[in-house]
Amino acid sequence: MSPKKKTDRLIYLPLGGAGEIGMNAYVYGYGAPGSERLIVVDLGVTFPDMDSSPGVDLILPDIAWLEARRDRIEGIFITHAHEDHIGAIGHFWGRLGAPVYARMFTAHIARRKMTEGGFADEAVHTVAPWPEVVKAGPFGVGFVPLSHSIPESAGLVIDTPAGRLVHSGDFKIDHTPVVGEPFDEKLWESIAKDGVKVLMCDSTNVFSPNPGRSEADLPEAITALMKQSSGMVVATTFASNIARVKTLALAGRAAGRSVCLLGRAMRRMIEDALETGILSDFPTVVTPEDARDINRENLLLLVTGSQGERRAASAQLANGSYLGLKLAEGDTFLFSSKTIPGNERGVIRIMNQFSEMGVDVIDDMGGKYHVSGHANRPDLVRLHQLIQPKILIPMHGEHRHLREHVKLAKEQGFEGIVAVNGMMIDLTDARPRVAEYIETGRTYLDGSVQIGALDGIVRDRIRMALNGHVVVTMIIDEHDEPLGDPWCEIMGLPETGRSKAALVDILEADLGQFLMRADDKTLRDDDRLEKELKKITRQVCQNEIGKKPEVTVVVSRLS
Amino acid sequence: MSPKKKTDRLIYLPLGGAGEIGMNAYVYGYGAPGSERLIVVDLGVTFPDMDSSPGVDLILPDIAWLEARRDRIEGIFITHAHEDHIGAIGHFWGRLGAPVYARMFTAHIARRKMTEGGFADEAVHTVAPWPEVVKAGPFGVGFVPLSHSIPESAGLVIDTPAGRLVHSGDFKIDHTPVVGEPFDEKLWESIAKDGVKVLMCDSTNVFSPNPGRSEADLPEAITALMKQSSGMVVATTFASNIARVKTLALAGRAAGRSVCLLGRAMRRMIEDALETGILSDFPTVVTPEDARDINRENLLLLVTGSQGERRAASAQLANGSYLGLKLAEGDTFLFSSKTIPGNERGVIRIMNQFSEMGVDVIDDMGGKYHVSGHANRPDLVRLHQLIQPKILIPMHGEHRHLREHVKLAKEQGFEGIVAVNGMMIDLTDARPRVAEYIETGRTYLDGSVQIGALDGIVRDRIRMALNGHVVVTMIIDEHDEPLGDPWCEIMGLPETGRSKAALVDILEADLGQFLMRADDKTLRDDDRLEKELKKITRQVCQNEIGKKPEVTVVVSRLS
Repeated sequence: MSPKKKTDRLIYLPLGGAGEIGMNAYVYGYGAPGSERLIVVDLGVTFPDMDSSPGVDLILPDIAWLEARRDRIEGIFITHAHEDHIGAIGHFWGRLGAPVYARMFTAHIARRKMTEGGFADEAVHTVAPWPEVVKAGPFGVGFVPLSHSIPESAGLVIDTPAGRLVHSGDFKIDHTPVVGEPFDEKLWESIAKDGVKVLMCDSTNVFSPNPGRSEADLPEAITALMKQSSGMVVATTFASNIARVKTLALAGRAAGRSVCLLGRAMRRMIEDALETGILSDFPTVVTPEDARDINRENLLLLVTGSQGERRAASAQLANGSYLGLKLAEGDTFLFSSKTIPGNERGVIRIMNQFSEMGVDVIDDMGGKYHVSGHANRPDLVRLHQLIQPKILIPMHGEHRHLREHVKLAKEQGFEGIVAVNGMMIDLTDARPRVAEYIETGRTYLDGSVQIGALDGIVRDRIRMALNGHVVVTMIIDEHDEPLGDPWCEIMGLPETGRSKAALVDILEADLGQFLMRADDKTLRDDDRLEKELKKITRQVCQNEIGKKPEVTVVVSRLS
Repeated sequence: MSPKKKTDRLIYLPLGGAGEIGMNAYVYGYGAPGSERLIVVDLGVTFPDMDSSPGVDLILPDIAWLEARRDRIEGIFITHAHEDHIGAIGHFWGRLGAPVYARMFTAHIARRKMTEGGFADEAVHTVAPWPEVVKAGPFGVGFVPLSHSIPESAGLVIDTPAGRLVHSGDFKIDHTPVVGEPFDEKLWESIAKDGVKVLMCDSTNVFSPNPGRSEADLPEAITALMKQSSGMVVATTFASNIARVKTLALAGRAAGRSVCLLGRAMRRMIEDALETGILSDFPTVVTPEDARDINRENLLLLVTGSQGERRAASAQLANGSYLGLKLAEGDTFLFSSKTIPGNERGVIRIMNQFSEMGVDVIDDMGGKYHVSGHANRPDLVRLHQLIQPKILIPMHGEHRHLREHVKLAKEQGFEGIVAVNGMMIDLTDARPRVAEYIETGRTYLDGSVQIGALDGIVRDRIRMALNGHVVVTMIIDEHDEPLGDPWCEIMGLPETGRSKAALVDILEADLGQFLMRADDKTLRDDDRLEKELKKITRQVCQNEIGKKPEVTVVVSRLS
């Protein structure tokens, strides 16, 4: 660690994940103001929806600020392999170019993402758990094992000349996590004993009042369910929740069922976990082809699509069949998962499709078949107590979570501050203060192009979806006179309205009328002409169909 | 009641509400097959969403089957005034033309809907509660008071020559409903004592395992909250939940707060309830203008928008201010409501906006500030026991609810059948059987036009939202030769892609190339030309931006 200079400062800047759940990307800096050396913690994505981002493939943070300072980045540290923490690495690495550090399983996934993004996977370095420390400029960074819903999740200990920081990453307090390391209170006490300046802490479940439950609470109920079901059992959970997949598979085996994995992510994650040695004692799986010949009561399918995703195995089964496998009356479908807010419509859709087939759908309404991967309120209190930070900065939460988490910290007597994306916090002194507001936002991966969320492209799509689209074309001849009538095409609009005549006919007649009366000045001026034609088109549509559509006018001039 | 003839049959046909929650519309018929006399129970709407119905204003059932038999309709019976039961009356009455029957408060709302739809409100008849009976052809229909989340909800007793039917409408078992009649077990016993052939029963909460709670359980907690809050309190619930609005208002008064109603529906519903005498003891309200001059700690706003609706008062307050009223640090916003599945995104959005203002947002996570208006599983069991029907047909539920409800009925020893929209059930004999499948569906009110859900209009909008839209225009001269280059306009697509040149330039160049090489046969054939230009446009876009857009081609021929 470098010695502390009087003018140096320690900064924290979330570029994603603070004010939202998803798209985590946090920056720490230390040095002279404006030339701090930087590290990045996590580089995740979030997912589009029809309401705000139709047609978008993936949502990434805006890293323009970071890219402009790429020569100052000492390293990128990934806490765990969930998409909202690692998903952007293969899209952005070329613009940042710093070494990537992670624990073994996470590094394994990171290397694949680098390869898929066209980058050399040598940039990814595997780090052993604490007490191993990566030296990155003025920072020393160690990975402390924590329980979560994916193997090898880590909290980071970040030592700086201004003091020790702890970045919790995603975590829960689980002493019996089925796969991976249990939460180690003694270890955290030892890390905290010489004082922690700031704790950046997961806020996801700050509104959940009861202590979190352990992954090990589930096998009994799940096994009972698999035994009592008389038909095929199909279960879904996040593929990356290796402990859960193992629990489900072992329960299936205990109930005399062969296990078949469906969905690319499910197969790949289990392969990854076996390859890296994270997972052992997993039952031998059967292929979908073999599964077809097994009696229903002896079969368990473990499938992707717990969030109702349209292309996942669960949705395909709901639509009819997948790889020759088909659900039927008397089968059971288990959601060993929670529906993420916003995904309800998709999940309910497949539930009803299964119901129509006569399948019993079991979700987690009763709390028997799923536990959360995040610390509930009492567990957050416990971590705060163990770490005893001078300052608590909540992260991994919407604004309401961050605000509640600061309240909670203050109840415990800790200093706290709500820091949202783009808010650069100066942590040098005893009290945190906002140093600067950085322009941040979202980048959309749209097809193969990265576009800005505010470029207007997606806004135009939403407008077409809400209002429909009218295309007006017309020709102006060499003498600046209209040649023939204007021509209209409609998309996403009813063909007839109030007057029962074709909407395009009425539009063409009214636009033609206007052109007949239009003066030379208008006919010579494309902008003016376009403006008038748009206005008339919208008025006619308002009269006829009660809607003002988007209008594109194309004026072709012969010359 | 007419005598029963041997060949006559009794039928039940849901056109909406069976296989979905919303858009209720049920038909009963009695008579010779194919010429039954009909009654309609409820004529409701459901609401659009961006995923499946962007730009649509309202979703109504498809009543084509009913309209084709309008001379056989004896009456339309409305169980209560929720939009999903009454909302289509002003849109459809002209196509059906039968008398409308409802209890006083519901009839009051129905009359307004008729007037708004341009129909004479004399068609609406107020019916006193059971034992008053409306004679409607072979049917005798009585309205039995039931508790729900709106005043004067009613279950219908429908006497037919084939036996007595009970149509529960929406209900809960509440012995202390704050406003309106308590659930009357003795009355239902007396109705059931001579035997009920079929119970059509609300299924909404069949998955809720605990007994339902009473509206009267809430005032204590709500009053305590209003007293302990140091700033302004803003509370939202469905405006039609008059009992809840009253509870909130009385709690506000008890906490020394003046009450101000915000949002058109809120003001109008309270006026309706006062006018009809349904509501009494309601505190005097202050206008928004006066509210501005009242100390925050002495003010309670009751506002529309419990589902996060974009134009409601809650959303306007979340966006900044509404009628000069503005929330601030230390104020409290209470959702005395449940978020309907699918509305989570909108609700969460305003929660976070309030959080950013420093407002404490309280929702019903703890169950202290809201009770459901529907019967939970144990309450359904109780109603089944009281009615002792020979057959139970679940309604008002998605497929999974209907299926579970039939299971529940069978556990109790009742016959049951899942009947979804379009399934005509013959109830004449002891066992229900499917008589026919009727084509049903959804009608969209889109601006001022009613369109079919499957007309392709909304599908085109969704496609433009997902894929963007390219417009290609070109001119062909008198000799069937291209005149100048084709012209492209894009909407909802990035301006540049892989090759960094403008997408429209690349498109125009490639399309121009094609036209130069095109043979006479192609140039003379509009369809062929359009097909080729579309294909090239989509290919170029796939190469450049990784997306295949919707394409409209306009070929103008000079002649």
